[in-house]
Amino acid sequence: MEPVSRRISELGQLFQPVQAFFDRSQRARERSGEEACDFRAGDPQELAMPAYVEALRAGAEARTPDWFAYTQSLLPASRTVAAALRERTGLAFGHRNVTMTNGAIAGIAVSVAAIADPDDEVIIVSPPHFLYEPLIRAQGGRAVRVAMDTTTFDLDVDAVQRAITPRTRAVIVNTPHNPTGKIYPPKTLERLGAVLNEASERTGRAIYVLADEAYCRILFDGHSFHSSAAAYPRTLVIYTYGKTLLAPGQRLGYVAVHPEMPEGRSVLQAVQNAQLLLGWAFPNALLQHALPELEPMSIDVTALQRKRDRMVEALRGFGYELHVPEATFYLLVRSPLKDDEAFTGRLADDGVLVMPGRLLEAPGFFRISLTASDPMIERSLPVFERAIKEVN
Amino acid sequence: MEPVSRRISELGQLFQPVQAFFDRSQRARERSGEEACDFRAGDPQELAMPAYVEALRAGAEARTPDWFAYTQSLLPASRTVAAALRERTGLAFGHRNVTMTNGAIAGIAVSVAAIADPDDEVIIVSPPHFLYEPLIRAQGGRAVRVAMDTTTFDLDVDAVQRAITPRTRAVIVNTPHNPTGKIYPPKTLERLGAVLNEASERTGRAIYVLADEAYCRILFDGHSFHSSAAAYPRTLVIYTYGKTLLAPGQRLGYVAVHPEMPEGRSVLQAVQNAQLLLGWAFPNALLQHALPELEPMSIDVTALQRKRDRMVEALRGFGYELHVPEATFYLLVRSPLKDDEAFTGRLADDGVLVMPGRLLEAPGFFRISLTASDPMIERSLPVFERAIKEVN
Repeated sequence: MEPVSRRISELGQLFQPVQAFFDRSQRARERSGEEACDFRAGDPQELAMPAYVEALRAGAEARTPDWFAYTQSLLPASRTVAAALRERTGLAFGHRNVTMTNGAIAGIAVSVAAIADPDDEVIIVSPPHFLYEPLIRAQGGRAVRVAMDTTTFDLDVDAVQRAITPRTRAVIVNTPHNPTGKIYPPKTLERLGAVLNEASERTGRAIYVLADEAYCRILFDGHSFHSSAAAYPRTLVIYTYGKTLLAPGQRLGYVAVHPEMPEGRSVLQAVQNAQLLLGWAFPNALLQHALPELEPMSIDVTALQRKRDRMVEALRGFGYELHVPEATFYLLVRSPLKDDEAFTGRLADDGVLVMPGRLLEAPGFFRISLTASDPMIERSLPVFERAIKEVN
Repeated sequence: MEPVSRRISELGQLFQPVQAFFDRSQRARERSGEEACDFRAGDPQELAMPAYVEALRAGAEARTPDWFAYTQSLLPASRTVAAALRERTGLAFGHRNVTMTNGAIAGIAVSVAAIADPDDEVIIVSPPHFLYEPLIRAQGGRAVRVAMDTTTFDLDVDAVQRAITPRTRAVIVNTPHNPTGKIYPPKTLERLGAVLNEASERTGRAIYVLADEAYCRILFDGHSFHSSAAAYPRTLVIYTYGKTLLAPGQRLGYVAVHPEMPEGRSVLQAVQNAQLLLGWAFPNALLQHALPELEPMSIDVTALQRKRDRMVEALRGFGYELHVPEATFYLLVRSPLKDDEAFTGRLADDGVLVMPGRLLEAPGFFRISLTASDPMIERSLPVFERAIKEVN
């Protein structure tokens, strides 16, 4: 007698390797104590910004009796988001196009729920976020993978086109891309838009872009960001403040429906229904009250870029192969051992914790998060140097 | 061409009447301005407790670099919950039995997901929370209603027994009960436990109690609360701080698996998997950091009881029929007109907003939330008096 849902057990297997990695590496981290160098995830390794803390404290100050009442999307929050989207995309977003969500992961879950019926297909680009497939399947959908263009890291529009079937309902487009740090160029997004337009016409069913734009404000070298929304009106923009504010435990983000999406009102209503149906999945009142102050705030991206440059130069100097990311928190480094888990295990023995590529569908690589502190980076470099020497 | 998921559209229809009521009555509320008397929901009508605000502000103060890092259930929060449950139930809850959730609604969603496969049945008691059926169906399950005992408002264990089929997977037991304010007595819960034990043995599948105990600390007249967990080891205790702290917009609660549940570890793991699968559905870091301070805190239940007594006496004096609730926020009043929506519409015209019973599966009644302020109560009484006079 199975005591729990078979469905949930099966889906749990999908992310069990990632969870096991975090559990295991957490123990390694604790063994290394203060000396640990934690590059595993986009997590803060230094105290939060004082202005961030202050905005939360202000959000906690009840100014009206209904301050902590049942909350769906609060108007000042949605208005602030719409204004930010107008500025970022040039499109006429209004507060009625926006619903507030518990970060981008919940944004993906409720967007998939809103548009996909059982066995509908959602195309994802490999390497994907480790939760994309589980989130899609939890809503009864199927995840269909296409590989990225491994030379340019660009979205392979031809591969997307080949993957489209009569059951295709959406494509998750993650730009800037985790873990490659690639910003998809406008031309790629326009080609994708043309392909999806044509396919929606042909199949008689709308195909949506679920635009995971979590890293759209973590840009290096003066690069511009290009939203999928600018190239395709059937776009749902999905965002989290967890990256820009380096506070992923705070679960604050949004889904915004393109202002020119045909039947966009129905789509937003469906997303909001899905939010109720998945368990009143709206961010809490405090965070929404704080949002107008939080929206313009950001971690120091220049400092992040300095970390990138320091690490890229040092690692290349030691003989590692890696490209220079245009955006995001991540370096994707070729593992000197083909077995990336063996290599990253060796680094972990010396207190340097990185994500093995196999867990990211990037076998033979490992991922470094630049959210580590400067002292962590400096302490890690001799470990990286020794490890590659031992292997060669 | 349907632009959105048929499944979500259909499920959205289930709660559309409640949403429409809140939208409509919100306009009535705004028309009445400062004079409105809002008895619609368990929402605050006065400023939050200063101690509550202070605890949130303290929770925002980052004390470690990982204060706002990716958060599932934080250990100090789970430990605090386990200690509170030990004290409340006398059972040996430990932190490993607990997962933190975004309030009780999310707690129901993830618990149902964890245990029910498609077409599995979950028994609910009518009148139920308006989201029980949508939450169950969103996870692919079926909601099977049994009526309460309308003389005693007690759980009708015989009716539950008759509703059990080979597909039954759970019973949602909401005590103290919204909207009757009934505390199920230990004997009822023990009989239910015996019935479910026997049925689990007979069908060869565990049947769980999902114990929605949101109001377990809102008790009147020195009544004691009896947890379903004390009578049945296959119980998942589901709780929200939204009632005790009168802050339902803050989405903080938990699911706790009975320490003696057979295969309880698998069940908790399934609940936590479901939390990831429904969109990283863990309460945000700030709230979890604040939890040890929030746990012992409560609104003034004595003041709530005074409001209950004031209203019961006055309404009975005007000729209304109603019982005296043992617990919760609510009075359930017989509508002087058979058509409760017509009667509550008349009250709304005079700025007194109550919930029509039809929306709660209690046609011919209406519900009053005692979370209204004292001035609202005093202003409302002449309106209640006039309305019943006009009808008679």
